[in-house]
Amino acid sequence: MPNAVVSLVGASGYSGAELLTILSRHPSVTIGKLFAHASAGKRVQDVLPRFLGILDALLEPYSPEAACQSDMVFIALPSGEAMNLVPELLSRGKRVIDLGGDFRLDGAGVYERYYKRTHTAEHLLGTAIYGLPEWNRANIRHSTFVANPGCYPTSVLLPLLPLLKEHLIESTGIVINSLSGVSGAGRSASPELSFAEVCESVKAYKVGTHQHIPEIARALREFSSSAVSFTFVPHLLPIIRGIYTTISAPLASGATSEKIHGVFQQYYASEPFVRFIPVPEIKHVVHTNYIDIGFSIDNDSGRVILLSAIDNLVKGAAGQAVQNMNLMLGFNESEALL
Amino acid sequence: MPNAVVSLVGASGYSGAELLTILSRHPSVTIGKLFAHASAGKRVQDVLPRFLGILDALLEPYSPEAACQSDMVFIALPSGEAMNLVPELLSRGKRVIDLGGDFRLDGAGVYERYYKRTHTAEHLLGTAIYGLPEWNRANIRHSTFVANPGCYPTSVLLPLLPLLKEHLIESTGIVINSLSGVSGAGRSASPELSFAEVCESVKAYKVGTHQHIPEIARALREFSSSAVSFTFVPHLLPIIRGIYTTISAPLASGATSEKIHGVFQQYYASEPFVRFIPVPEIKHVVHTNYIDIGFSIDNDSGRVILLSAIDNLVKGAAGQAVQNMNLMLGFNESEALL
Amino acid sequence: MPNAVVSLVGASGYSGAELLTILSRHPSVTIGKLFAHASAGKRVQDVLPRFLGILDALLEPYSPEAACQSDMVFIALPSGEAMNLVPELLSRGKRVIDLGGDFRLDGAGVYERYYKRTHTAEHLLGTAIYGLPEWNRANIRHSTFVANPGCYPTSVLLPLLPLLKEHLIESTGIVINSLSGVSGAGRSASPELSFAEVCESVKAYKVGTHQHIPEIARALREFSSSAVSFTFVPHLLPIIRGIYTTISAPLASGATSEKIHGVFQQYYASEPFVRFIPVPEIKHVVHTNYIDIGFSIDNDSGRVILLSAIDNLVKGAAGQAVQNMNLMLGFNESEALL
Amino acid sequence: MPNAVVSLVGASGYSGAELLTILSRHPSVTIGKLFAHASAGKRVQDVLPRFLGILDALLEPYSPEAACQSDMVFIALPSGEAMNLVPELLSRGKRVIDLGGDFRLDGAGVYERYYKRTHTAEHLLGTAIYGLPEWNRANIRHSTFVANPGCYPTSVLLPLLPLLKEHLIESTGIVINSLSGVSGAGRSASPELSFAEVCESVKAYKVGTHQHIPEIARALREFSSSAVSFTFVPHLLPIIRGIYTTISAPLASGATSEKIHGVFQQYYASEPFVRFIPVPEIKHVVHTNYIDIGFSIDNDSGRVILLSAIDNLVKGAAGQAVQNMNLMLGFNESEALL
Repeated sequence: MPNAVVSLVGASGYSGAELLTILSRHPSVTIGKLFAHASAGKRVQDVLPRFLGILDALLEPYSPEAACQSDMVFIALPSGEAMNLVPELLSRGKRVIDLGGDFRLDGAGVYERYYKRTHTAEHLLGTAIYGLPEWNRANIRHSTFVANPGCYPTSVLLPLLPLLKEHLIESTGIVINSLSGVSGAGRSASPELSFAEVCESVKAYKVGTHQHIPEIARALREFSSSAVSFTFVPHLLPIIRGIYTTISAPLASGATSEKIHGVFQQYYASEPFVRFIPVPEIKHVVHTNYIDIGFSIDNDSGRVILLSAIDNLVKGAAGQAVQNMNLMLGFNESEALL
Repeated sequence: MPNAVVSLVGASGYSGAELLTILSRHPSVTIGKLFAHASAGKRVQDVLPRFLGILDALLEPYSPEAACQSDMVFIALPSGEAMNLVPELLSRGKRVIDLGGDFRLDGAGVYERYYKRTHTAEHLLGTAIYGLPEWNRANIRHSTFVANPGCYPTSVLLPLLPLLKEHLIESTGIVINSLSGVSGAGRSASPELSFAEVCESVKAYKVGTHQHIPEIARALREFSSSAVSFTFVPHLLPIIRGIYTTISAPLASGATSEKIHGVFQQYYASEPFVRFIPVPEIKHVVHTNYIDIGFSIDNDSGRVILLSAIDNLVKGAAGQAVQNMNLMLGFNESEALL
Repeated sequence: MPNAVVSLVGASGYSGAELLTILSRHPSVTIGKLFAHASAGKRVQDVLPRFLGILDALLEPYSPEAACQSDMVFIALPSGEAMNLVPELLSRGKRVIDLGGDFRLDGAGVYERYYKRTHTAEHLLGTAIYGLPEWNRANIRHSTFVANPGCYPTSVLLPLLPLLKEHLIESTGIVINSLSGVSGAGRSASPELSFAEVCESVKAYKVGTHQHIPEIARALREFSSSAVSFTFVPHLLPIIRGIYTTISAPLASGATSEKIHGVFQQYYASEPFVRFIPVPEIKHVVHTNYIDIGFSIDNDSGRVILLSAIDNLVKGAAGQAVQNMNLMLGFNESEALL
Repeated sequence: MPNAVVSLVGASGYSGAELLTILSRHPSVTIGKLFAHASAGKRVQDVLPRFLGILDALLEPYSPEAACQSDMVFIALPSGEAMNLVPELLSRGKRVIDLGGDFRLDGAGVYERYYKRTHTAEHLLGTAIYGLPEWNRANIRHSTFVANPGCYPTSVLLPLLPLLKEHLIESTGIVINSLSGVSGAGRSASPELSFAEVCESVKAYKVGTHQHIPEIARALREFSSSAVSFTFVPHLLPIIRGIYTTISAPLASGATSEKIHGVFQQYYASEPFVRFIPVPEIKHVVHTNYIDIGFSIDNDSGRVILLSAIDNLVKGAAGQAVQNMNLMLGFNESEALL
């Protein structure tokens, strides 16, 4: 396939800058427009000096006309903003990958409950293809509109889905704890995310109310064909990048370590970005598109402990988005990602 | 009560130094001997310069005769060492508080399974009083030998016990995730604990095999009078101090947020070192003897999420040990701890 | 002396909260009013949960009437705000300690050049006593208005002044590099101080333009009676608390290591908060009012390297302020500080 | 030029693993043997799980025969070990790049003074070409034996040399302060480098005695043709990677900001890995082979402040080593480094 021209909306945020890093080494991609809000009018290398000598490009205020000069548009904006841009882009026939949460759910009610705002493009809810390549590759290939998964859901779904689908674990009593680095909250001026508040501390947050809960629930239901009951508690950690997820799930009758191992092999042996290791660590996956997965059986409680680690900005955002783009545009799925 | 002379074995480790910090401001305590191994022969302020101008004392090699000149001996050694010292100290009538794990379990078999060594003072197993003041205060007061609780168990037992005892949660399906700072591993030369390996990463460790699992199980069983099934996964975090514990437990029939609140008040309202806050954070408790506890109900899954935060070196070690000493010696329980 | 009632303006900032921590354990102080701006109307323990169970007090909007009910007022506000409050407080006969920079310089011109604003209480410039107890104790004792030194100047002046005064170093060619933790910038919502921007990085800032340059210059000149030429470069580090200062100064003819040692002893041997150690480290002084000082001679270049470490919020702000209060009110100078 | 086979001695250390990362993406390099000591016999991806799915190679104990099957040998060992391997490798005609300090000095006396050991290959001292491409490119191209510069010297020499050579600064009174991340000390089990000791602290170390002092002195002398007097103070910071260097140097008569800018352009405008930015920050260069340089004039003191930032493992070690290899083997100098 010939080169594609891709544009980025939200190019100076953490996910946007990571997209830019990955796309700038993609051999089949030409970077089109870089849209930004607060930094519009500046050059990207002045706003993000790590691009000095690597990129020289202008950050522009968003315009649909300029965006539509590209073959594909990545939207890396805080949730609540993409829904104002996507309808026009789609109606003009552009391919869109939205890295935010506006199109990952399928109902306006659940969106409003968890995102605390009204959805302004309700007619498009449920139309985006969920961009989890390991479980939705065929649909992604033929899609023009992909909702890129959230960082927490990526780290939860990949270890959990094979075991649920193959009935090696029960669908109730599942407990998910996730630990996230600070960049997951985006580039922010919140005093709660200042170094002096975050360093040398840890806290849970949005217990029972995090917007990734319905996203996880929907994807578990759709990909495993079963209704699942779980608790999910996210925590904020003093690291920049990375998500670490620990899941405790009741083993189904007859489930063994060997069967779990076998199912993981069956589903993921040929996946380019899924690795297995007894105990994942964030440092092994940081700056990569890999998810590392480990598990162990706790015989005393009859449960399996699943562990996973990803880089929230790569496999949890920009890397997975490029993986989706590669599928949509017919490139090698791993291009620019290894 | 008149002054007591107390000695420390393992005075230059992290728990030992924290003990020294607390005891040096205790109005009714005279510090007797400070025993150390690798640092024996040096002065404490040369090994730990933060004591410059505050303390001037010699670190000596351990001798039972010297230890027995004191009214009370704190042992802050890596597990496996106290069992060689305790029999003689007790037989000479000394009061002992062991901050390590050698006397927290009640059977040689379970000790050997989890601590990977043979117990050399098997006849004393089960004789130590478990030093969790909020649940064992009367026994501690009359005890001469206290096994100070582990850091993880302290953070787990205090939120969990009231709800178990009052049957507000089920005794199976309990999932415990704990996050610990690095000082929990003691002063160590392990390359795995070097800054470059720990910073900007997270990992689970000893999944299903951590030596605090049988300690938690025993204490839950004894203080709540029920057999409990749980999974426990400890994680290593890039912070120096602190433990954060997140527990997901199935609500018993009829349990409500109000009842949980009421039970916590009933058990802890007059406790000097238990505080309630919707979402604990490590930074609020660091360098204090407090445990902060929060909870929330997850109606979708019918579970309660319990959160707790402590400083592993204070409430999880040296602070709780001094709290126990205060009880054993008839001092004000909070002396030197507020 | 009987108890004093002290009030704090800016009680919820980093310096204000540290003041509150120290003052709440001061036996001769009653805390009067706590003034805050954004947090006014809330209780201090709700804004700063580490005070839960320790303090229960209301944060109020500032009013001069309320402030004047106390014997002494600490002002812990960003620079530029104290100058609007101090004239009235002084005219009503209140003792004032200003922890900000508004009254540390003696001219409106230099203030405007470095602080980038016009001074609104120009007539008071030069009237405040510079609160560096080791060099200005007698004046502080009789003062009603103290300008508490900046954090960087404290770390620079204490090692440098004795050698300058005794002519053991030259007064030109002095190079000062300082490294500061993030809390030095105050509680802030600046994206530049977010964890993701600060962690795993270091930068110099305000090279040649930092507002502490004229403060250092003035104090060196006044206390050493000589005009001094120096460069000062501050750096931002990924730590919460602490300042580390490294000074390279040309040795005067005849200066030796022994003479330097002797001069330090002569000036500081009886100082309660100055310690000597070959190589200071921030971790030894954090949460204390100590300054640790070390030095070594570099024979090849004919220079002395001076090293110092302080906790910027204690000896560099709140601790030194209480030390000044103790002097002004006739208390033991170390009260609540050891 | 055809592919080259390169082997690594010390492949599992921090510099070795970084070399492996860079070389594994080099299109003209085939990785030959990976030699390790403690990890010999294991596979590299088991020792360093970040290579899972990327590399599959055995770590072997060193043997000269195996090493000599390659065209080039990188030695990434602690100083003191390369001198035992290099003589045989050179005598067998192998190209060698030593990343350690054994061959950066030109005299056995100065080596022994700073490295505290006797040099065992004294006849080779002074024969290695100093691998600073920006100043020694022609010699490196024709060399078979390169001493790769130290991390601190790289960060010091590149900003300082053009100004010295062009007489824009004086050659005495130069003050160099450097701040280093922990990985500069290599993979280590030292308790002093444990997370709990390093985090939230800073210290100077080896003041006046660091082994990079004579390396800096020699290179300044040889490349600028002038004898230089300076003080150098290294500091240990709580970051994993990165060096930040701040230099204060007296301006020569007639030196201006414009002249300094001009000289930097003259020397470095076409350099692929030297960038200019008013205030460098470590985060901009981490994981890259760039050095970022900034400067400002301090008119009050008549000095220039030079600032530089590098990644100690890339431009300060493995990246610069590959840059040297590219020159020696006739590849594009930037291959695998951008």
